Amino acid sequence: MTDEPEITKAPQIATTRRGFLGAGVAAGGALLGAGAARAAGPDPLITEVQPWAQGLGDGVDASPYGLPIRFEGDVVRRNVEWLTADTISSINFTPIHALDGTITPQGCGFERHHSGAIELSKDDYRLMINGLVDTPLVFTYADLERFPRETRTYFLECAANTGMEWAGSQLNGAQFTHGMIHNMEYTGVPLRLLLEEAGVKTEGKWVLAEGADASSNGRSIPLEKAMDDCLVAFKANGEALRKEHGYPVRLCVPGWEGNMWVKWLRRIEVGDQPWEQREETSKYTDTLADGTSRKWTWVMDAKSVVTSPSPQMPIKHGPGPLVITGLAWSGRGSITRVDVTVDGGKTWMPARLAAPGQDMAVSRFYFDHVWDGSEMLVQSRAIDSTGYVQPTKTELRDFRGLNSIYHNNCIQTWWVKANGEAENVEVS
Amino acid sequence: MTDEPEITKAPQIATTRRGFLGAGVAAGGALLGAGAARAAGPDPLITEVQPWAQGLGDGVDASPYGLPIRFEGDVVRRNVEWLTADTISSINFTPIHALDGTITPQGCGFERHHSGAIELSKDDYRLMINGLVDTPLVFTYADLERFPRETRTYFLECAANTGMEWAGSQLNGAQFTHGMIHNMEYTGVPLRLLLEEAGVKTEGKWVLAEGADASSNGRSIPLEKAMDDCLVAFKANGEALRKEHGYPVRLCVPGWEGNMWVKWLRRIEVGDQPWEQREETSKYTDTLADGTSRKWTWVMDAKSVVTSPSPQMPIKHGPGPLVITGLAWSGRGSITRVDVTVDGGKTWMPARLAAPGQDMAVSRFYFDHVWDGSEMLVQSRAIDSTGYVQPTKTELRDFRGLNSIYHNNCIQTWWVKANGEAENVEVS
Repeated sequence: MTDEPEITKAPQIATTRRGFLGAGVAAGGALLGAGAARAAGPDPLITEVQPWAQGLGDGVDASPYGLPIRFEGDVVRRNVEWLTADTISSINFTPIHALDGTITPQGCGFERHHSGAIELSKDDYRLMINGLVDTPLVFTYADLERFPRETRTYFLECAANTGMEWAGSQLNGAQFTHGMIHNMEYTGVPLRLLLEEAGVKTEGKWVLAEGADASSNGRSIPLEKAMDDCLVAFKANGEALRKEHGYPVRLCVPGWEGNMWVKWLRRIEVGDQPWEQREETSKYTDTLADGTSRKWTWVMDAKSVVTSPSPQMPIKHGPGPLVITGLAWSGRGSITRVDVTVDGGKTWMPARLAAPGQDMAVSRFYFDHVWDGSEMLVQSRAIDSTGYVQPTKTELRDFRGLNSIYHNNCIQTWWVKANGEAENVEVS
Repeated sequence: MTDEPEITKAPQIATTRRGFLGAGVAAGGALLGAGAARAAGPDPLITEVQPWAQGLGDGVDASPYGLPIRFEGDVVRRNVEWLTADTISSINFTPIHALDGTITPQGCGFERHHSGAIELSKDDYRLMINGLVDTPLVFTYADLERFPRETRTYFLECAANTGMEWAGSQLNGAQFTHGMIHNMEYTGVPLRLLLEEAGVKTEGKWVLAEGADASSNGRSIPLEKAMDDCLVAFKANGEALRKEHGYPVRLCVPGWEGNMWVKWLRRIEVGDQPWEQREETSKYTDTLADGTSRKWTWVMDAKSVVTSPSPQMPIKHGPGPLVITGLAWSGRGSITRVDVTVDGGKTWMPARLAAPGQDMAVSRFYFDHVWDGSEMLVQSRAIDSTGYVQPTKTELRDFRGLNSIYHNNCIQTWWVKANGEAENVEVS
């Protein structure tokens, strides 16, 4: 083994700190929690050799496919029982409050099914292209693997994400208000190549995308979008799609509402008009104040949310440095700027983007704040490459009324109290 | 439910195909496998309503943290039993042959431990910075969360990756020849900020990074690198680091050999010279032909490998379109070009990069080939932003001899036979 680690011989090491975190102490009082405990005397975690440094850990054969450590057992998708009649047609929300960066692991990426997640093997998989085409075609999974591939990162947001906020602040936590989203790196074949293989007739203006599950979740997509950036995807974050995300093949419709990303994709029909199927008439339309409905509202407008601090991620330390972080995305392009406010929108300050925005992919933003320990009204607002600015809830209601369920992209407010706890609130 | 899906009423739909895949039939013979089966008659998978379209699938509460579907049970990390004496200090290889895109899921990202993977909670976590600093400091996990964060994607490659190739072609499969690599999106605090907090004395020229496991895996890192892009990371691919990847905190040393990315990071000592610890003297040095050793060979030079076709990913179809794909990376910058050959290096053709190369991150390349059905000697070669070209095995041996274990970045050859099977071979 190596030299005896010096850490065990250094009980005299100072456990106070200076500069960055020290500024917090000077400005607003003693550090809370672990900080206070450290001030009380030498820390046995520093001065004594701990059990994990005295023996052997697990070997590499312990688990061929790894799961999160048990301490992270609360970072999981969660259902809201009263939201739907049955879990078969329900939603599990991504724990976005506890994640960072931009990638959503498949294992905790939100899921929503119309008749449950089906098990479909690659051998049993077929994709038909029919309708207004020169030659109707059927592709096996192996056939799809022979076409030129693309790899791109895209967000998928359910049209109903944040939908409960139309009626007020009902769900307390970013996971539940904004967790119907995930952001993954997809690999697949451009739908355009498959349509070109079949040969779209001149009259063809729309495609119907249909899944192999009992609901089939049929959705009409304009041919222009189908020929642009839609992807017939078989991998997400490098590996095969998970069962609940459409294994073995799903459709990606970048920037557009999640229900159009048909899972277990079995058929693409080309037609000259939309099909007006159940999932695009009785659902996924937006009822306005006058009772009329907007339909074909496919694109997810620019939106953002602070994921921490938030109701599930209270501040557990005292005044001083505080990282305010969150996610921003736009179905119309890339995120170019995110602003953050701690006073409910009176003063906005630009946040840092972790990387330049990518089209139709999530951006992570950070705002390095010095918290004075008083209560805050924390918000973020996204601005995308078209110049669109995420609206306030009031602005959105002025235009759309209160009858909608879908496409709520308003600015979210967290009331962070002096004790660090946060609540979902509305500000006028 | 929706309209009865039309797919069940269309037994007359042609199951032949034209154009893209049809060219393969015309050029070199009948399609193999499923293609041949389809030609024999109507496909019940198309003409009959299948069980998965008749009933309900799983609800959303089936598994709070999802795992891959059972059909993908072979896409897992694998050990090579004879490689090391014990699994405690062994390696599990990433199944790169079966992955696509660039992200490696944590659950199948390779692991290597020096005294086993330990279980260390956030509450028990401490990071000390001591040595030639103005103020020795101890950080809790919660302290680290208060510093400004970065999110960046980096590859981690073990110095021993491809090491068995020095002696010849011994391991048959990209997973085993090149699977000591993963590529993840990390979130953490720049080490520079923590060192600045402690205040590095003028004499400080090196840091020692040490883990909380029994081995401690102490590694010396020049201060210049520590102050440049090293990251004290607590998330990978959005979520907490897995236990086997160093939960709750590991060091990222972008572009440099994996053993320096100390897991369960407990201490950073600043010194005026390197420590010459076990893991940087008895290991991770490169013995040359004359018996002398190169040391401090930290940077992983540009490298690439074809992941499919490969020994674990034989071609299962006949002549015609074939996607040749693989990974490329460089510790000195970004990948600017990857070339592919199917004749053992006589003719090189540029591959497509899935996206512009990013510094010290893996690039995915695709080469859309029309296979004539005859045997191939498939290779790839990477070129990075410094202009460096990945060497052949012969070129590397001419310079480095045959005594090395580490830092083998030579061009890899797969002999793909006419039956589609592939073998690891050497070409002169």
